Amino acid sequence: MNNPVTVEVTRGHIVESRHRGMAVVVDGDGGIVFSAGEIESAVFPRSACKAMQALPLVESGAADAYGFGNKELALACASHSGEPEHVTTAARMLASAGRDETTLECGAHWSFNQPVLIDQVRSLDHPTNLHNNCSGKHSGFVCTCCHTGEDPTGYSTYDHPIQQAIRGIMESLTGATLTHDNCGTDGCSIPTYAVPLKGLAHGFAKLGTGQGLEPIRALAARRLFDACMAEPFYVAGTKRFCTRLMEVAPGKIFAKTGAEGVFCAVLPEKGLSFAVKCEDGATRAAEVMIAALLARHFETDSQEQRALAAMANPTMKNWNGIEVGEVRVTDVMRG
Amino acid sequence: MNNPVTVEVTRGHIVESRHRGMAVVVDGDGGIVFSAGEIESAVFPRSACKAMQALPLVESGAADAYGFGNKELALACASHSGEPEHVTTAARMLASAGRDETTLECGAHWSFNQPVLIDQVRSLDHPTNLHNNCSGKHSGFVCTCCHTGEDPTGYSTYDHPIQQAIRGIMESLTGATLTHDNCGTDGCSIPTYAVPLKGLAHGFAKLGTGQGLEPIRALAARRLFDACMAEPFYVAGTKRFCTRLMEVAPGKIFAKTGAEGVFCAVLPEKGLSFAVKCEDGATRAAEVMIAALLARHFETDSQEQRALAAMANPTMKNWNGIEVGEVRVTDVMRG
Repeated sequence: MNNPVTVEVTRGHIVESRHRGMAVVVDGDGGIVFSAGEIESAVFPRSACKAMQALPLVESGAADAYGFGNKELALACASHSGEPEHVTTAARMLASAGRDETTLECGAHWSFNQPVLIDQVRSLDHPTNLHNNCSGKHSGFVCTCCHTGEDPTGYSTYDHPIQQAIRGIMESLTGATLTHDNCGTDGCSIPTYAVPLKGLAHGFAKLGTGQGLEPIRALAARRLFDACMAEPFYVAGTKRFCTRLMEVAPGKIFAKTGAEGVFCAVLPEKGLSFAVKCEDGATRAAEVMIAALLARHFETDSQEQRALAAMANPTMKNWNGIEVGEVRVTDVMRG
Repeated sequence: MNNPVTVEVTRGHIVESRHRGMAVVVDGDGGIVFSAGEIESAVFPRSACKAMQALPLVESGAADAYGFGNKELALACASHSGEPEHVTTAARMLASAGRDETTLECGAHWSFNQPVLIDQVRSLDHPTNLHNNCSGKHSGFVCTCCHTGEDPTGYSTYDHPIQQAIRGIMESLTGATLTHDNCGTDGCSIPTYAVPLKGLAHGFAKLGTGQGLEPIRALAARRLFDACMAEPFYVAGTKRFCTRLMEVAPGKIFAKTGAEGVFCAVLPEKGLSFAVKCEDGATRAAEVMIAALLARHFETDSQEQRALAAMANPTMKNWNGIEVGEVRVTDVMRG
């Protein structure tokens, strides 16, 4: 492993911490537009590939059969904060298929977002599966199974037909061969597969451009990206980085974070896809890396470019609101 | 910066994330017993040096004048979780000096520890300065000022006599020259000074052995370490890593974490001091690094050694309680 320092965290005049990482930008042919670090290294995409995992929901006809619009499709691609709208939308998706939260296999947790957590604690005894940040994705799995006539029981396991289908999709999109050998268990218990960062980016570029895809997949991908870009709140939540990125340039940026420092994005109009992984798993580093890369593809000094550049260089304040330092990308990411 | 990979985080059979770091073990003469990475690099000790910052409280006679015992002295060295015992002890310290939480300049925040946060949200409208993890340290500053006749107003600022005194203590212990150039502002608003990791460790070794110290300082240090080791709950809190480390071998281990991946420890009986810094600031990495280093200094297969080795290699579980991976030190740390 020999990845460059891509992000620095300062305090006063001094660099306090450093993050290393890898980053790649590819076009629909898989041509590399930018790269830094070991982009052939296998990384777990974690939640960054939820839009890939949601393809069967659309391709199977389940989304149409249950009348899902942009909010439901965005939630199927989401790592949401468990805000009331997220929770009720997941419940509505399940109800469409005649199911409820007891069918979900994701487990329960309080919101990761402190203001939401505080609201939850004041209104709930304990969180349910519906509050899990992955409840929309899991509801999508359940709805797909119900529509196609599969028993959803065990839908989160490696050998269930829905996970087999997703494994096939991930293989064809990323070019990787996926078996138990490169499989791990995700936070919500479904399989996650380590794939080369470059292959992950190429997979998103195919989805963003339709290049090399069956028409049904190209249409499904377009519909999911459009849904996320139309309803960015449903992909993450209030003040969350994915939501803010997509709000910067409505309809132009698709972006999705994953645990352990992964971030993917697509600029459909430009036919470009972006994938970054912070070597040490830090979210703060992945966020500024993806924002800096995206900023380079908007016009100099445009509103979008300035907003993205600001997101690539956040100020850190302490408990008294005093500025103590900043997070910033290094020249490696400025290209 | 060229620090080795010291910690790996796995998922399934694959290393998902990697942390680089530096680590040093020194004796009372400053002799290096172990080192990895760039130990001459300057790091902000952050809260890891709170025992150094608490020396004026004892040396000034304030602790005796106000009748402070082990709990108060441990809290003065603490980054506590804001549990009720922490909050009432800080309030009692301030009351001893005729003050209350309005004198504190640390700012307010909810507990970093989720179960404690949930209890706080259910019983409080908002947290106060007393709930800040640094409230014990700040109460110690206020008490020192009140006892010595200084106005505590502005005690958190660079030029206040208490911070000047602490700057002098840090210089004499670490051997570094400290000015505005190597000063940053900490989360609780007091100055924090970047010092070489080796110097930080040597400072703790002096405190742990008394070597090279004035008798009054050696006694004060011993009293603070003894207080922390006697009341480890007051140094951190329920299930916190510092508390657990000190509970492994009562009276034999002093340990204190700092933000951005710093951890310091002392084995007074062995005259050894330990300091680690994770390059990227990750707490999970600093924790396993310090536990692995400490484990090497206990008898093979002893209860203490096994407990520390287990803390150096935690299993990670997901929301359903399924084991998904582990955090482990690399051979660099095994020596």
